[in-house]
Amino acid sequence: MGKTVSDELRHEVLRANLRIPEAGLATLTWGNVSGVDRDAGVFVIKPSGVSYDVLGEEHLVVVALEDGRVVEGDLRPSTDTETHRSLYRAFPSIGGITHTHSTHAVAFAQACRSIPVLGTTHADTFNGPVPVTAALTAQQCAEDYEYNTGQVIVDLLGGDDARAREVPGALVAHHGPFTWGADATKSLEHAVVCEAVAEMALHTLALGTVVPPQHLLDRHFTRKHGPGAYYGNPGRV
Amino acid sequence: MGKTVSDELRHEVLRANLRIPEAGLATLTWGNVSGVDRDAGVFVIKPSGVSYDVLGEEHLVVVALEDGRVVEGDLRPSTDTETHRSLYRAFPSIGGITHTHSTHAVAFAQACRSIPVLGTTHADTFNGPVPVTAALTAQQCAEDYEYNTGQVIVDLLGGDDARAREVPGALVAHHGPFTWGADATKSLEHAVVCEAVAEMALHTLALGTVVPPQHLLDRHFTRKHGPGAYYGNPGRV
Amino acid sequence: MGKTVSDELRHEVLRANLRIPEAGLATLTWGNVSGVDRDAGVFVIKPSGVSYDVLGEEHLVVVALEDGRVVEGDLRPSTDTETHRSLYRAFPSIGGITHTHSTHAVAFAQACRSIPVLGTTHADTFNGPVPVTAALTAQQCAEDYEYNTGQVIVDLLGGDDARAREVPGALVAHHGPFTWGADATKSLEHAVVCEAVAEMALHTLALGTVVPPQHLLDRHFTRKHGPGAYYGNPGRV
Amino acid sequence: MGKTVSDELRHEVLRANLRIPEAGLATLTWGNVSGVDRDAGVFVIKPSGVSYDVLGEEHLVVVALEDGRVVEGDLRPSTDTETHRSLYRAFPSIGGITHTHSTHAVAFAQACRSIPVLGTTHADTFNGPVPVTAALTAQQCAEDYEYNTGQVIVDLLGGDDARAREVPGALVAHHGPFTWGADATKSLEHAVVCEAVAEMALHTLALGTVVPPQHLLDRHFTRKHGPGAYYGNPGRV
Repeated sequence: MGKTVSDELRHEVLRANLRIPEAGLATLTWGNVSGVDRDAGVFVIKPSGVSYDVLGEEHLVVVALEDGRVVEGDLRPSTDTETHRSLYRAFPSIGGITHTHSTHAVAFAQACRSIPVLGTTHADTFNGPVPVTAALTAQQCAEDYEYNTGQVIVDLLGGDDARAREVPGALVAHHGPFTWGADATKSLEHAVVCEAVAEMALHTLALGTVVPPQHLLDRHFTRKHGPGAYYGNPGRV
Repeated sequence: MGKTVSDELRHEVLRANLRIPEAGLATLTWGNVSGVDRDAGVFVIKPSGVSYDVLGEEHLVVVALEDGRVVEGDLRPSTDTETHRSLYRAFPSIGGITHTHSTHAVAFAQACRSIPVLGTTHADTFNGPVPVTAALTAQQCAEDYEYNTGQVIVDLLGGDDARAREVPGALVAHHGPFTWGADATKSLEHAVVCEAVAEMALHTLALGTVVPPQHLLDRHFTRKHGPGAYYGNPGRV
Repeated sequence: MGKTVSDELRHEVLRANLRIPEAGLATLTWGNVSGVDRDAGVFVIKPSGVSYDVLGEEHLVVVALEDGRVVEGDLRPSTDTETHRSLYRAFPSIGGITHTHSTHAVAFAQACRSIPVLGTTHADTFNGPVPVTAALTAQQCAEDYEYNTGQVIVDLLGGDDARAREVPGALVAHHGPFTWGADATKSLEHAVVCEAVAEMALHTLALGTVVPPQHLLDRHFTRKHGPGAYYGNPGRV
Repeated sequence: MGKTVSDELRHEVLRANLRIPEAGLATLTWGNVSGVDRDAGVFVIKPSGVSYDVLGEEHLVVVALEDGRVVEGDLRPSTDTETHRSLYRAFPSIGGITHTHSTHAVAFAQACRSIPVLGTTHADTFNGPVPVTAALTAQQCAEDYEYNTGQVIVDLLGGDDARAREVPGALVAHHGPFTWGADATKSLEHAVVCEAVAEMALHTLALGTVVPPQHLLDRHFTRKHGPGAYYGNPGRV
């Protein structure tokens, strides 16, 4: 069997996974990032239960988008693999997905509360609250549990790819955050922001919240996203 | 006197102890891990009050399960040694024990509250709340205090080894967490999870909790534990 | 075009920017520090969206105070550049400015609450609460948004340079902290203090606050600032 | 002028100061440790406002217990020097003193609340609450402010050396913690414990506190302190 994905994708997925512990979002082996190659019809994902200390490119697993078959790799993929596959199939613009059990985002998920938009830090990345799904039913848990975990996110967004681009993350009720983006790196960065705004929101709720004006939030989202964006130096550093 | 325990056990117990500060669970010299050799009738434990910076295998102390005698080692064992011995004697399936004063688990212990099951992060490891013991009586404090500290945990679980396997940890009231597992490494990892879910629970309680559906919790516990487990790549990385 | 700023200023601004992640105030590429050369009529600032890991002096951007033109540098300056320019123009004593999205200061900004003076830690640096601005209007957001972000701070202080010296920072409502000082280094240190006192204030509010006596606060501010200051060993280490 | 203090004392005081940032108790240059030589009638203390990054033994300042004169050293001593001197003079058993602005201990000081005894972590070190002083009066602030800061602690303890040994620390109202011990190292360790128990107490108060039985607290204090102590391996590692 020849190589199914480029060295670049493999390298990017490894790097994004290693940024989970670097960003303080990991406990033990928890968390995983994947990146997709739409043309090849596969995605690359972290193996299940492997310590970040020893994780190398050779441990990554390549999985078919079509049926979830392992196409390349010696190890079992992350138990969350089917959740990733479900999201890739529903949202064509997604190029990478990150799942963590980061502390404050999990707290909102466990409280079945969306992370509200309380300021520009949030609006810079998420054009609206980070929403929380319905709880999975007994039937959704009994069969294809992990695939259904993705489906409750798909249902939450009405399967709308445009919404997935505007708010690149969601909380699965009683569980934790999934974030996504144009590629694996972006999905990881959205996981970092999701945790940061969750922590800020928790503290803000303790102080008493004030609804920010929509024109301020819009300004922040549009200066970083869309045709009028003027943030950053993309491709130059 | 010949060597009483294998180099492997000694090495594992040292490694597990050193992971206490690495995981951010240590203040000063606080905390300790032990591992047992049931055939030899002894367990290996951290010495009392030694800094993690200088801790080496030569400092570890070997203690007899039968009577608590020091079988090997020049130093005094952890003051919590008798608590470990009490747990090893009551629960035959326990291979390792960890005790820490990690911040959020101690907060629950000090409030005499169990850590409630609020999501899948908890259910992945603990099949039920991390329970809190009764306070030790004046008599239990006056004599064999440390052994009795183990006994209040044994009493809490009704001496049931199966329960100890399902929920591998408990909070001693007004004191802090003890966790255990199949070996020293597992007991340490359960201490890490105990602190993580305590912190998540504290934040969730501030946001308002929602009882998670039992079918979701069951699914998570059983995908990592028991005959149907499919998490991880045990023995392969 | 010759070099517009001294190597010293460039070096100081780089160093101050790198202290943002070192002090734990950075998420991803967030935050920026600038330093001004009043004689040359320019200030040096971090480029937009560049990772601290790779940031070097060659990436810094030199901007004209007069009109915001980029005078030197290949990259786009921070999107917050116009906010810095607005503050430099309004307050002649400011030599450096820092902006972060540090967690607890942002929480106060999102709650539209000033950081109250609750003790000597605060009074050592800020001679009064760290005040919060009014929210920007729709018109202030629609045009020259970043310049207007500075203007709401200028308005908050009544354009009073003496007040800017006494309380070297402010919170922009729904956004986060801007701090300043005699130079870039001082502005960075004030950002560190702003976050520290915000965290202390949040915890103090949970415990119940007691208004500190003004004579104590005055004593602390004046022992570090002004003609009678006796703190530190300036210029000697 | 010959050397006034031993190399050992100088080295220990430097080491204890450097442990302030290592233990996460420092913001910028905040905090200081001193150690006393009763026979020589002097104590060694950190200089004022020097960064921990560059702090060396040559920067330490030697001060006379009698009158606060600088006996050795080129730099100004910590502004808190007179507070240390006041405590050394009042309590003959104190060999070292540490002052920090650690976050959670400051929160209790700012709320003018003692840190209550909520469990064994506290009782292992402090035989009672860490008490908070009265606020300094206008007159106490106007003259000899730093010496009077020590005096409010002395007054709080009724000048009782035995009490100072039982509870080796206090919170100065609206300010922060001072801790002490048999030597500089012990005083630093008590500062670490003071911050740890303050954080635990804050979280416990949020969960609802339960008064621990006195027999449990006594057991913990006496197993580490006094003639019956059996904790640790003193002098052996």
